[in-house]
Amino acid sequence: MQTARVEPDVAHALQLAVDLIGTFVFALSGALLAVRKDLDAFGVAALSLAAGMGGGMLRDVLIGAVPPVALVDARYVIGALAAAAVGFVSHHQLERLGPAVRLFDAAGLAFFAVAGAAKASAAELPAFAAVGMGVVTAVGGGILRDVLADELPLVLRREIYAVAALLGAGVVAGAYALGQYGPVAAAVGIALTFLVRLVALRRNWNAPTAPQPPD
Amino acid sequence: MQTARVEPDVAHALQLAVDLIGTFVFALSGALLAVRKDLDAFGVAALSLAAGMGGGMLRDVLIGAVPPVALVDARYVIGALAAAAVGFVSHHQLERLGPAVRLFDAAGLAFFAVAGAAKASAAELPAFAAVGMGVVTAVGGGILRDVLADELPLVLRREIYAVAALLGAGVVAGAYALGQYGPVAAAVGIALTFLVRLVALRRNWNAPTAPQPPD
Amino acid sequence: MQTARVEPDVAHALQLAVDLIGTFVFALSGALLAVRKDLDAFGVAALSLAAGMGGGMLRDVLIGAVPPVALVDARYVIGALAAAAVGFVSHHQLERLGPAVRLFDAAGLAFFAVAGAAKASAAELPAFAAVGMGVVTAVGGGILRDVLADELPLVLRREIYAVAALLGAGVVAGAYALGQYGPVAAAVGIALTFLVRLVALRRNWNAPTAPQPPD
Repeated sequence: MQTARVEPDVAHALQLAVDLIGTFVFALSGALLAVRKDLDAFGVAALSLAAGMGGGMLRDVLIGAVPPVALVDARYVIGALAAAAVGFVSHHQLERLGPAVRLFDAAGLAFFAVAGAAKASAAELPAFAAVGMGVVTAVGGGILRDVLADELPLVLRREIYAVAALLGAGVVAGAYALGQYGPVAAAVGIALTFLVRLVALRRNWNAPTAPQPPD
Repeated sequence: MQTARVEPDVAHALQLAVDLIGTFVFALSGALLAVRKDLDAFGVAALSLAAGMGGGMLRDVLIGAVPPVALVDARYVIGALAAAAVGFVSHHQLERLGPAVRLFDAAGLAFFAVAGAAKASAAELPAFAAVGMGVVTAVGGGILRDVLADELPLVLRREIYAVAALLGAGVVAGAYALGQYGPVAAAVGIALTFLVRLVALRRNWNAPTAPQPPD
Repeated sequence: MQTARVEPDVAHALQLAVDLIGTFVFALSGALLAVRKDLDAFGVAALSLAAGMGGGMLRDVLIGAVPPVALVDARYVIGALAAAAVGFVSHHQLERLGPAVRLFDAAGLAFFAVAGAAKASAAELPAFAAVGMGVVTAVGGGILRDVLADELPLVLRREIYAVAALLGAGVVAGAYALGQYGPVAAAVGIALTFLVRLVALRRNWNAPTAPQPPD
């Protein structure tokens, strides 16, 4: 476990900060979906908590780190509920801030992918599983949000999204396997996921769908 | 763990009894939904098990109490399957017993909220997480039931339901934090959840939805 | 735990082989559903992984065997992703191979039911829970696949499917309870599930639905 403490205190504080930013941003996406589905205040809070904390909790259960950190450190719940309150009150303004929200969402995706892969690597899972846990952390909350809202999960049909998370998680797991994980590898993973996601958004890239036979 | 044994044997037996009543009542809600969705006998059993045992199993996985008690003590499965059988055979009569079923459902909600918060507190989770686990125990089974039935979970759009569970779980977690948890706190938590739920039903209270902007 | 090692090396290798076959076949069902729902390449991979590995991962989390074997042994992921690739490229041909796919699916069901019940029994869960874990292993992946695809799970409404898994898991759990589990009991359980499923398919057997009242 102590091999996980490769980052100095400043980087650790930075990671906690962006972990909480990721929680807030994803929770906001849950609040906005709940308002669009005309759910009540509890439904808004529930979808915010699910979107903001679901991916990390699923990762923690799968790697055996129970109780999940979101049940031990209250700041995750506070961040998710703050997003629920903001979304509940200001959804109308937020919907017009679409581009800004997508920027934050890409940042959340990047940080969650890297944080998830790093935590799984520190728990001594093999590299392929650490990559998987990075993706689960990054997209799990959004999938849970959509399943609870009775919708086909956005990540399963949308543009390059999980693939961007996969790249960042791969950088982390690869660096761990080589004994080179540290702030540089984390920063590279975060930047890679963030940039791929932004370029995919701007250029409207999509993952391919299955080839159809000629009629 | 031994701090959880603050209740004497009589109270412990009482809690087991109402835990099983809660399982039965929630399982019945699963059976009735399955019949309405025209599922076959296995589907009725599956939704009964999910509704009756899902919330407690999710709580146990999250707090690290695995295998969940419902996989160790056969009475939970027996209670849920008995409800499935009753619902399968008598669904027509039960649908006309709506008010009685809602009374039992409110009792199940109250006992599950208190039992969940007490178990999480005994496992030394912080108070905010114990409250969350009380709500998860109380509403988790119903959410799983609805997700499996491909419906938007009732608890996300209906009247004051999870909020009632939140109040009872809050009483328990608060009492634990003050070192005062015992039969009295449990009874207060159960009564509070039960009464708030019943009043909300009778007066048709709803949680607020997000304010809409003027057109 | 050592009581689980009743099978010689050959049988162990055989079980791993069929476990992987089951993963592949179920993952193929996920890929085909994803293509039908017009999901992109990531969605195809996600539903394949969910269908092929979801049941076993859920079982492992519930019995406390974390991280799940599918996160430790890369062959499960490789098998599921291979199925995703085959389904992505060859879905048109595969849809015409319906009967062959159903044969493999029945085999996967049989092996997963037996493997799940055996693993839960080896973890010293009581017999009823081992049967439940056999069914969860066998049908959990398919349920997760359908929930993610925003569909009512097939297993909840279709012909005799989970019941066939229940029978095979019951044979294993019963043999364990009697201290007689070994290759013979495993083979009987697999054959029983496989045959019941095939006969149900051929004769179009269905589980009964709830009796309707006279109008």
